[in-house]
Amino acid sequence: MLDFPEKLLKGYHVFMNTRLVQERERYKQLAYEGQKPETMVIACCDSRAAPETIFDTDPGEIFVMRNVANLVPPFHPDKEYHATSAALEFAVQSLKVKNIVVLGHARCGGIRSALDLDGKPLSSVDFIGKWMGLLTPAAEAVATNTLMTSSERQTALERISIRYSINNLRTFPWIKRREDQGKLALHGAWFDIATGELWIMDRRTGDFIRADD
Amino acid sequence: MLDFPEKLLKGYHVFMNTRLVQERERYKQLAYEGQKPETMVIACCDSRAAPETIFDTDPGEIFVMRNVANLVPPFHPDKEYHATSAALEFAVQSLKVKNIVVLGHARCGGIRSALDLDGKPLSSVDFIGKWMGLLTPAAEAVATNTLMTSSERQTALERISIRYSINNLRTFPWIKRREDQGKLALHGAWFDIATGELWIMDRRTGDFIRADD
Amino acid sequence: MLDFPEKLLKGYHVFMNTRLVQERERYKQLAYEGQKPETMVIACCDSRAAPETIFDTDPGEIFVMRNVANLVPPFHPDKEYHATSAALEFAVQSLKVKNIVVLGHARCGGIRSALDLDGKPLSSVDFIGKWMGLLTPAAEAVATNTLMTSSERQTALERISIRYSINNLRTFPWIKRREDQGKLALHGAWFDIATGELWIMDRRTGDFIRADD
Amino acid sequence: MLDFPEKLLKGYHVFMNTRLVQERERYKQLAYEGQKPETMVIACCDSRAAPETIFDTDPGEIFVMRNVANLVPPFHPDKEYHATSAALEFAVQSLKVKNIVVLGHARCGGIRSALDLDGKPLSSVDFIGKWMGLLTPAAEAVATNTLMTSSERQTALERISIRYSINNLRTFPWIKRREDQGKLALHGAWFDIATGELWIMDRRTGDFIRADD
Repeated sequence: MLDFPEKLLKGYHVFMNTRLVQERERYKQLAYEGQKPETMVIACCDSRAAPETIFDTDPGEIFVMRNVANLVPPFHPDKEYHATSAALEFAVQSLKVKNIVVLGHARCGGIRSALDLDGKPLSSVDFIGKWMGLLTPAAEAVATNTLMTSSERQTALERISIRYSINNLRTFPWIKRREDQGKLALHGAWFDIATGELWIMDRRTGDFIRADD
Repeated sequence: MLDFPEKLLKGYHVFMNTRLVQERERYKQLAYEGQKPETMVIACCDSRAAPETIFDTDPGEIFVMRNVANLVPPFHPDKEYHATSAALEFAVQSLKVKNIVVLGHARCGGIRSALDLDGKPLSSVDFIGKWMGLLTPAAEAVATNTLMTSSERQTALERISIRYSINNLRTFPWIKRREDQGKLALHGAWFDIATGELWIMDRRTGDFIRADD
Repeated sequence: MLDFPEKLLKGYHVFMNTRLVQERERYKQLAYEGQKPETMVIACCDSRAAPETIFDTDPGEIFVMRNVANLVPPFHPDKEYHATSAALEFAVQSLKVKNIVVLGHARCGGIRSALDLDGKPLSSVDFIGKWMGLLTPAAEAVATNTLMTSSERQTALERISIRYSINNLRTFPWIKRREDQGKLALHGAWFDIATGELWIMDRRTGDFIRADD
Repeated sequence: MLDFPEKLLKGYHVFMNTRLVQERERYKQLAYEGQKPETMVIACCDSRAAPETIFDTDPGEIFVMRNVANLVPPFHPDKEYHATSAALEFAVQSLKVKNIVVLGHARCGGIRSALDLDGKPLSSVDFIGKWMGLLTPAAEAVATNTLMTSSERQTALERISIRYSINNLRTFPWIKRREDQGKLALHGAWFDIATGELWIMDRRTGDFIRADD
């Protein structure tokens, strides 16, 4: 109907006839009581790395911001609007989430473009270039190490960027404060699309360790 | 392990032992061939309105950007980084998606705060205020109409904001061009959390019509 | 007896009463007919990464050279004796092995010392420093990338060093010739001590891929 | 996969499904705590004389250097890299092993070539000739004794070379010192491939005595 993408409409009908049937009460309750997610997930737009799928979550469970390459820019108070900072402010100051998870993933197109130091911009304005420019110093440090394979450099920068975003989270005063008070924990994770494996960041060392080990 | 949120780890193990088992080949293929989603969904961070759940999608099917209130700011080329514009550029110019769906939903906290003209900011910087400020003219027009109930005003602005974002999409020259060429279609949808109903925007009139009617 | 290490003597008696009983004929045959291993393995001295254990090999199956960090120095014909080059010459020119496998491993002490650019030598002569000095250019490229964790740098250099050794194998004219003739194949592998996983090098890309994937 | 030698991959899968299953915890511990072998074994590359097999050792038990004919060159401090000396330095100065075992064996190809005074070199550079040249004075004394059979000459030189290597170990000042302090013991052993018998060197006399006598 209304030329809405056929595939999505079919999917919605599956949802309506299966999950919604079982969870109608839950949805009703979530509508009237409001959402109370304990965790915010910052994820990539990539179609292969949806946090709801990977974490098999129920409605109401995770508050999810998604942008290219799951980046958190540093705290930058000015007169402009900031999609990412606004989502963080809402999650932390209003919903008072207890966890923020930065979820990266393998074969990230944004990370790949950051490593392609001589790449052509996708448009004359080059929004992707400016966005991934947040990672430029890290990307240069990785891209110039030609002893690593391109795939190794990609994985390295994907993980560096997760740690970078977590560090940037701490530049937001109200995140830092809540973390210091033990009310908020910051986590990193990396999803390997090819194998479906989840790697969790060790918060002391920054290393990524397979979740099922 | 590593004090990662218990609930998410359990969910990941469910994913690993169920969906991943069935879709291992698909994930492998998606990894090696890259993602080729036909549709980009612009959705809200709200924990109750995940597009993958509502549209029952498979991995690789939809490219998903999520911010507070599923807003698309107008095309604004400057020296700053723009999370939303970067995601649009990647989806349209690199992935060449055929559809963009702006997916709003009922009881949106961002929309509520936009309507609350005297509300206190969540922080001294007021990132949410600036972000929802994109809707200020529309919000003022709706908020001052006291003949509508507060619930009607909320739904009204939710739908207005979807049309606003779709109009802003057309301010991006490469989106306008592809739409004019018939290569890209822009859609709106609104999810009613309380009932689980999906309302689709009629592209000619801008009205929202229940999907199962 | 004779104050030989007790543990080894006990182990020998286990061997004598179990494996040797089953394989006495094989040992006899191997003695009279000589060894005909099809594969040479270049491995590290590390006590946790014995190729016979990891590959569950039978007597006579693999010809094994082991030095610190499984390094192959470049072809360097002079008047000096060269342990590694001599072993290569024997394996390729006399035994005519069909495969050479460079087997690295996680948490390699030699690699760690190569990355420790300011480390103190173990002796005034610093044999380890000179030996690992073969990797100095690679070690510097990796060690200076402080955006990677120390564990990530370690893994990176372990894998770089395997590729380095394989490249050096090709500097030996009789290895290059046999490889070009399709009579000899050069392989890389990396053993993860913590998990027992073996990662195999993709010979086209140099990437390491888990053996059970 | 990836054309890695089939036999080794099969062997790895046996390892993975048997030994690794039983020793997973041990491997994990060895990874996180590091290796602490009490004994270094200097063995030959020969495919029939793997110390892990002969001594039925567990992972982490012995630090193993292997070169052609299990030779230790004399202490020779210069600007060059030395594979064998580096391994010794690491074992003694860093791991502080309590025992060094030089493990020779019957029918050693390296020893045979040392005795073949008129043999042709395997390559124009003759790496094996230079390496076995360490034994030339001993080889000449044995080779010219035509009253012994060729098999007796072979065994004689195999045992002489073990004592030669043990003497050379004492030319390393930090080995000599630790031996004098009673912190390090130097041992010899000889493995008879045809019978599977181990012969232990009597440290007072230098004689070899069957281990099970």
